[in-house]
Amino acid sequence: SQLLGSLRQENGVSPGGGACKMRWQLSEQLRCLELQGELRRELLQELAEFMRRRAEVELEYSRGLEKLAERFSSRGGRLGSSREHQSFRKEPSLLSPLHCWAVLLQHTRQQSRESAALSEVLAGPLAQRLSHIAEDVGRLVKKSRDLEQQLQDELLEVVSELQTAKKTYQAYHMESVNAEAKLREAERQEEKRAGRSVPTTTAAATEAGPLRKSSLKKGGRLVEKRQAKFMEHKLKCTKARNEYLLSLASVNAAVSNYYLHDVLDLMDCCDTGFHLALGQVLRSYTAAESRTQASQVQGLGSLEEAVEALDPPGDKAKVLEVHATIFCPPLRFDYHPHDGDEVAEIRVEMELQDEIVPRAQNIQSRLDRQTIETEEVNKTLKATLQALLEVVASDDGDVLDSFQTSPSTESLKSTSSDPGSRQAGRRRGQQQETETFYLTKLQEYLSGRSILAKLQAKHEKLQEALQRGDKEEREMSWTQYTQRKFQKSRHPRPSSQYNQRLFGGDMEKFIQSSGQPVPLVVESCIRFINLNGEDPLVEGCTAHDLDSVAGVLKLYFHPQVYHTA
Amino acid sequence: SQLLGSLRQENGVSPGGGACKMRWQLSEQLRCLELQGELRRELLQELAEFMRRRAEVELEYSRGLEKLAERFSSRGGRLGSSREHQSFRKEPSLLSPLHCWAVLLQHTRQQSRESAALSEVLAGPLAQRLSHIAEDVGRLVKKSRDLEQQLQDELLEVVSELQTAKKTYQAYHMESVNAEAKLREAERQEEKRAGRSVPTTTAAATEAGPLRKSSLKKGGRLVEKRQAKFMEHKLKCTKARNEYLLSLASVNAAVSNYYLHDVLDLMDCCDTGFHLALGQVLRSYTAAESRTQASQVQGLGSLEEAVEALDPPGDKAKVLEVHATIFCPPLRFDYHPHDGDEVAEIRVEMELQDEIVPRAQNIQSRLDRQTIETEEVNKTLKATLQALLEVVASDDGDVLDSFQTSPSTESLKSTSSDPGSRQAGRRRGQQQETETFYLTKLQEYLSGRSILAKLQAKHEKLQEALQRGDKEEREMSWTQYTQRKFQKSRHPRPSSQYNQRLFGGDMEKFIQSSGQPVPLVVESCIRFINLNGEDPLVEGCTAHDLDSVAGVLKLYFHPQVYHTA
Repeated sequence: SQLLGSLRQENGVSPGGGACKMRWQLSEQLRCLELQGELRRELLQELAEFMRRRAEVELEYSRGLEKLAERFSSRGGRLGSSREHQSFRKEPSLLSPLHCWAVLLQHTRQQSRESAALSEVLAGPLAQRLSHIAEDVGRLVKKSRDLEQQLQDELLEVVSELQTAKKTYQAYHMESVNAEAKLREAERQEEKRAGRSVPTTTAAATEAGPLRKSSLKKGGRLVEKRQAKFMEHKLKCTKARNEYLLSLASVNAAVSNYYLHDVLDLMDCCDTGFHLALGQVLRSYTAAESRTQASQVQGLGSLEEAVEALDPPGDKAKVLEVHATIFCPPLRFDYHPHDGDEVAEIRVEMELQDEIVPRAQNIQSRLDRQTIETEEVNKTLKATLQALLEVVASDDGDVLDSFQTSPSTESLKSTSSDPGSRQAGRRRGQQQETETFYLTKLQEYLSGRSILAKLQAKHEKLQEALQRGDKEEREMSWTQYTQRKFQKSRHPRPSSQYNQRLFGGDMEKFIQSSGQPVPLVVESCIRFINLNGEDPLVEGCTAHDLDSVAGVLKLYFHPQVYHTA
Repeated sequence: SQLLGSLRQENGVSPGGGACKMRWQLSEQLRCLELQGELRRELLQELAEFMRRRAEVELEYSRGLEKLAERFSSRGGRLGSSREHQSFRKEPSLLSPLHCWAVLLQHTRQQSRESAALSEVLAGPLAQRLSHIAEDVGRLVKKSRDLEQQLQDELLEVVSELQTAKKTYQAYHMESVNAEAKLREAERQEEKRAGRSVPTTTAAATEAGPLRKSSLKKGGRLVEKRQAKFMEHKLKCTKARNEYLLSLASVNAAVSNYYLHDVLDLMDCCDTGFHLALGQVLRSYTAAESRTQASQVQGLGSLEEAVEALDPPGDKAKVLEVHATIFCPPLRFDYHPHDGDEVAEIRVEMELQDEIVPRAQNIQSRLDRQTIETEEVNKTLKATLQALLEVVASDDGDVLDSFQTSPSTESLKSTSSDPGSRQAGRRRGQQQETETFYLTKLQEYLSGRSILAKLQAKHEKLQEALQRGDKEEREMSWTQYTQRKFQKSRHPRPSSQYNQRLFGGDMEKFIQSSGQPVPLVVESCIRFINLNGEDPLVEGCTAHDLDSVAGVLKLYFHPQVYHTA
């Protein structure tokens, strides 16, 4: 790093002196402490700003989603432009797809609310908390720095005392050395003087005696005096050296204590709570986002449930229920005998037998042929439907595949050129082809079935008449005519209102008035249950569908459940 | 519903006639089929539009997040305005908080990418698929309607044939009745004529014989002729009645077949694949959103890991490592004997004993007192730190609480007025108070420890000297002086470069050149491990921290691991 590099440079040109190097280290330590603190404050401020701007993005997103949900909710709208459609809006259970749509909009609104809440937390408490931590770090670093400065001052004070002690020791030692030199000088002169007096002892012992004696005495006193002086200085020197040595030990201990403990402790002091607080802010952030996402996952769950509840037979039953007047079969066409005609059945006179018997046989054989053909067509029809549904279902695999493989960087590209889209186009072609074939077969089947129904009815009537002809042809009497007429007249005239009473009416009255032994709705429901009840796993039909149909039956017999619910 | 209402009205005014009512029903059935189809197409188009607009919102969100991540990544930036800071950017492992920051930005970028991908799926395949389904529904409804129309035409044809058959029967029956009347008339006249001829048989038998005979013969021929005519008409009538009755059976069968089967089958045909396809689109939607969210949850997991990896001791060790030159303790201050002074230790002369012994005792007692005091302060210090960290940690509970309770509708309110914020303010006050007290105690502790270190050093020196004084005071010889001097001179002059070789240098050379038996970093690391290794569950220190420190030790002994990694 630059810092390290500049340090090395400075180290390169710095004088080797220990105290000087230490001073440099101490000031760099302060700088380093300040730098760490500054970096942290900047990081925290940057994080706070990030949170605020992230909150803005989230709020914008929330508003976009809200506007979207609002737009489509209010123009229940386009779908409900006529009052007729609004009734579907008001009764979403009427059509299960509309329920999905309502749940989707609800999910979107919930997403909007969650994003708004997230935005609020980021811009509010989290950004504020980060600012607080930045303040805390600034304060702590300032205080730690001041404390470090104080400890450094104390350390340098001790070092300075060491210099003083060293100088004192040096001065006293110098004096001690000088005193010793002077003592040695005096001792040397004393020795010299004593040595000169020995060879002159016999020649001038008497004439120089008193002088020499006083000189010797004087020399001895000087040595004594210098000896005392030396001892005094030596003691002073020892004391100064002791102080110097003690100061040395003290300084080394102080330096060691400062470098090994104080510096690290002050770094810890700067750190106090920083990682803890930062970690908690970031955890709050993840918690807030996770909560948002958990809620969204829940919303998606509701949507999936609504999709599971898509209910074709139920929807159809609702349509039949709402539009009962339209779908209820009309009264049977009755036989209206012409004025005075008392015959109300097919008569096979002798003269007609030659004509009717072959005709009955002809109908019989057409019936047999038509039955086989219609059954064949029905088989093809069912297989085609299966194939069609498979194509429809397979089409969606594409959507997911393209999602899985689409690289997000290539967004907004034209979707008509890629291979997936070409494949989808091929599938759509296949779907339409299958659909056309299905409808052709359906047409054939419905026509066939209609012909079959008519042939069947004629066939039954003819067989009835032929059998009756064999047995009773000549037993016919007025009485029987009258009886039959009476039986017929027992049916009262049908009421034109019975349709309105289909749901909620009296069953017996209905049957009496309509002449239908089993009402259409009931017959239709039972047909459905029979058809699908045999194999509940048949395509598209679930136990749920059967429930829906059974529900319609229930409504039919207990309409008040529907009206009060 | 209005539709139902209007139907009832129409029903009220409609003539009771069956065929007329049926015609009305049939046209309403067609309308109903068209209406169902129209509602479905509109729903699908609305859903497609929703997907496109939802995609726009998502894309905007994605761009917002991308811009945000870009802004803060590029101004690595504000934090890295100097080259010094950029080194931190480039080496995020250097400071664990910067790693968190980098992961947060990475997470934001990932969110942006996911939203873009979601947007693409919604606007592209999903919207397109919905349009396709709308097309399919339109086509199917049109075809079903045409087919229904055809079946209705056939049905009405049969009904019309019935009317014709009925009219034919009525006409023939009329003729038959007329023929019978004429026969009866002829028979009556024949009878009358026969009755008149009986009373006149005796009176005018001869004169009116031939005339009466021819009249009787003529009357019998007329009866015969009329009888034949009647039988002919009666047979025609029977045939016509038979046709009428057969047509009646056929019509009733056809009507029943149409109402009970065809109508429902055609509704099914309109529905073909609709619920299936719609369900698959909505499932694709939830799958796409779920995928987005799963990726975000994963991103949050990474962020949580980064937060878990916040590592105060590791960060400190990195700082020490990078700034080794600044934090390495300086060389010991050595004893510099004054020119010629051969004493290098504290000397306790007889004359100094009276001074030094009490002084040593004084230091001893000050040491004892200081030790106790410093330990006391240290205990308070640790308790205060604990309290401080608890306050810091408790502050964040607030953030989450406010998130939990904040009603999203009251967003953007001033945060300075609510009780939560007031409580947070109180906590901040408490935190700063605790912090101030903590720093006061830290200052006391550090000062005390410094004094302790210095006293300890002096105490040891004095004790050493006193013991030595007792034992060797008078055994000191020149030889010992020289030996001691030799031992000292065995330490070579320290190299000024050893700091640069702290990491990656030769251990033995370092120890020799620095005079430090154990390098600072090693000592510091071991101190940490000893301190925290005893109780790994002590506040803030985890096994992970110990690992970090151990890692620094490893780096110290094997620096190439760091440089090559």
